[in-house]
Amino acid sequence: MAPLFEDEVFLAFSTYATIVVLKTMLMAPLTAYYRFTRGAFANDEDVPGKSEEQKKRLLRSHPEVERIRRCHQNDLENIIPFVIIGLLYSLTGPDVSTALTYFRVFAASRVCHTVAYVLPLPQPSRALCWMTGMVVTFCMAYRVLTETFHL
Amino acid sequence: MAPLFEDEVFLAFSTYATIVVLKTMLMAPLTAYYRFTRGAFANDEDVPGKSEEQKKRLLRSHPEVERIRRCHQNDLENIIPFVIIGLLYSLTGPDVSTALTYFRVFAASRVCHTVAYVLPLPQPSRALCWMTGMVVTFCMAYRVLTETFHL
Amino acid sequence: MAPLFEDEVFLAFSTYATIVVLKTMLMAPLTAYYRFTRGAFANDEDVPGKSEEQKKRLLRSHPEVERIRRCHQNDLENIIPFVIIGLLYSLTGPDVSTALTYFRVFAASRVCHTVAYVLPLPQPSRALCWMTGMVVTFCMAYRVLTETFHL
Repeated sequence: MAPLFEDEVFLAFSTYATIVVLKTMLMAPLTAYYRFTRGAFANDEDVPGKSEEQKKRLLRSHPEVERIRRCHQNDLENIIPFVIIGLLYSLTGPDVSTALTYFRVFAASRVCHTVAYVLPLPQPSRALCWMTGMVVTFCMAYRVLTETFHL
Repeated sequence: MAPLFEDEVFLAFSTYATIVVLKTMLMAPLTAYYRFTRGAFANDEDVPGKSEEQKKRLLRSHPEVERIRRCHQNDLENIIPFVIIGLLYSLTGPDVSTALTYFRVFAASRVCHTVAYVLPLPQPSRALCWMTGMVVTFCMAYRVLTETFHL
Repeated sequence: MAPLFEDEVFLAFSTYATIVVLKTMLMAPLTAYYRFTRGAFANDEDVPGKSEEQKKRLLRSHPEVERIRRCHQNDLENIIPFVIIGLLYSLTGPDVSTALTYFRVFAASRVCHTVAYVLPLPQPSRALCWMTGMVVTFCMAYRVLTETFHL
């Protein structure tokens, strides 16, 4: 196995990065579930064998489907940057307990964000979850920049 | 060159990751092509020197442009997770032939997905391509989690 | 620290990758700022304690908010591929000055792209910025493919 995996921080990073990326990917089947149960599709070929009138009724946007899609998009906008900056951060040799705290807080904040978005919970719960994740990524980015700065 | 490139799996990962990311990027010129040929733009400054009436006709969404954009979005939602999890997977020292199979199946599934989306082909062709790619990423994620598990 | 950071190219890559990812992330607070100042929200729970009539007026899409969101989306579509391909490129042991030129040109092109999109500047300024970034990523992808080719 690569020597990177002899490093405890890199092991933890791999685990948490995989978990949050899997969480992002699970938004896709969730969208499909909402599309079928709410009867709201985006493509003509997704409603085969229907009359023209039925198609017109099924090819529409539905507020609950759009909510899941916005949640998915928010994951892409926050989790991918976390993974990229977290990878570089893990390579800077940070303190193990600090790194673990960052990873745990980020993963928890994104799970809570999804719950707050999908249910939905009243604000500012979703806003706070989102901000927590942003702050963790900014802290890691700060260390990457101070350790590697080379323009 | 970095010792990572002495590893056959990492070499193959680099090749396939680059190919699928390039495939994703090519959706952007394709969108531009559809915008120009269908006359459907998103920004006021993209239709310079036109009368107000012409602008109103050109600043609209077009079903074929939206189709390409959904295909691009689906690439982002599936190919970026594949690359992230595939990178970690490659570092776990997997069996070369298994890894090559995963990479090849994923790349083929995404090319077929794009063809099925753009033409479009009747369902369930697009759904099956999408699911194949998801399953490959889940298999790699399973190995990453079992090999690196550290919460 | 990981031996990767003994490599000047990898140090520079880490710095530039972090900068452009942070730039992407800053589009989110910018969107929030435009949502509040323009009074255009996406979720029911984002406008609490309002009458039904006020809600109807606030839950809408606004052209300036949509512009920022398109800019954010364009960042995701271009900056994430740059980071993935740039990471692999950095590991191929490229010439330091060539690598630095690529990273600098890309970062500059994306900052200019955002300025051209948000203000907005007349075309083809935005199109040229976008194309410059694409060309840099294609050049790096070409080197990755020629150095690692293994299908």
